[in-house]
Amino acid sequence: MDVTEMTQLLRDFSAEREWQRYNTPRNLALAVVGEVGEVAELFQWLTDAEAAAPDEQLRQRVGEEVSDVLAYLLLLADAVGVDVAAAFTAKLAANAEKYPVHLARGTAAKYTELG
Amino acid sequence: MDVTEMTQLLRDFSAEREWQRYNTPRNLALAVVGEVGEVAELFQWLTDAEAAAPDEQLRQRVGEEVSDVLAYLLLLADAVGVDVAAAFTAKLAANAEKYPVHLARGTAAKYTELG
Amino acid sequence: MDVTEMTQLLRDFSAEREWQRYNTPRNLALAVVGEVGEVAELFQWLTDAEAAAPDEQLRQRVGEEVSDVLAYLLLLADAVGVDVAAAFTAKLAANAEKYPVHLARGTAAKYTELG
Amino acid sequence: MDVTEMTQLLRDFSAEREWQRYNTPRNLALAVVGEVGEVAELFQWLTDAEAAAPDEQLRQRVGEEVSDVLAYLLLLADAVGVDVAAAFTAKLAANAEKYPVHLARGTAAKYTELG
Repeated sequence: MDVTEMTQLLRDFSAEREWQRYNTPRNLALAVVGEVGEVAELFQWLTDAEAAAPDEQLRQRVGEEVSDVLAYLLLLADAVGVDVAAAFTAKLAANAEKYPVHLARGTAAKYTELG
Repeated sequence: MDVTEMTQLLRDFSAEREWQRYNTPRNLALAVVGEVGEVAELFQWLTDAEAAAPDEQLRQRVGEEVSDVLAYLLLLADAVGVDVAAAFTAKLAANAEKYPVHLARGTAAKYTELG
Repeated sequence: MDVTEMTQLLRDFSAEREWQRYNTPRNLALAVVGEVGEVAELFQWLTDAEAAAPDEQLRQRVGEEVSDVLAYLLLLADAVGVDVAAAFTAKLAANAEKYPVHLARGTAAKYTELG
Repeated sequence: MDVTEMTQLLRDFSAEREWQRYNTPRNLALAVVGEVGEVAELFQWLTDAEAAAPDEQLRQRVGEEVSDVLAYLLLLADAVGVDVAAAFTAKLAANAEKYPVHLARGTAAKYTELG
């Protein structure tokens, strides 16, 4: 499913409920945080080994919370006028330049951030 | 751009750098938080009016940080075995049932969460 | 109430329940995020004006969620061996130097972060 | 150091710089998120074992970022009119009732949240 299509579904969902006025950048930034908090709660008491072997219930819950984060994130981008597909492609290209394969191999991620 | 295609690009990016071992669910959950923090910083001192009228520089920065959140979010979903397109569709359908148009119109979002 | 005393109360609370093994830095970092998400949810659909005039119910809810963030934050500092009172004093002094009164007055906060 | 005293130091710091107008609840909630993101970044690529054996550099960095979170958290509570010491004491008492020692011992934290 295309992110532009996803964004359109979210717009329609909001419009049908006359919720567009709530979709301001700062509201949506806070809403993203609320949903990221729910993602964090799913993993907070798990060992790394437990989290690496998710059962079907955990996978289901992660799918739901990741979807909520994604929904608010796409609405936030939309509210600010960001083309997510274009921004994503540009950022990945910038990261490829920032972390050249021959320098980054096997070592970089631990000490720096992807983006 | 399709989310499955995005995920594949991110997998390739990690594999070329031999970073796959860092892509554990808990690492990626924390990485999502780090990038969401950067989104929040863009909006923390803006009034609602300023945020609603973003200039090109703010739009650019939001595009970059939203892309970083999205990248880690898709890698997290991938690490847990979540099909993001399917999960997103299912969650949107669940929300449509939870917030029927005739009840939710213009009022619900303020007091409840979307998801 | 002194932060050192607060930390001791939290240690005792955990010890009585034999929860110390859960109080690892990464667990507690994720737990902080979960509770910050709940703080964000309290404010996500409010206008700036509504948030600036909290009723007793909102004040009560903020007090609860701020306390949860604070509890996990103090346990995180404790797990890493940080003396919060000393760190706080040192950071405030560093910020005072970073943002001299005659330069920062009335303008700096909007464009930079406190810390 | 007492949390009320900390709050007073933060108020003074803001007042000297005429930053009080930025200290609105939603601004401060977003600022907390920004700083929590910096805490998360410190731990995102560490194994649980590495995080459990912090070196002096990591301890120093955690102290700084925890202090930033704490500063914005106390300013947020202050902006909403919350007495943090009283709220903290009340929440701890509520949690003690919610998680009785004889039921919670050694098992509860994994499946539920502290608060």
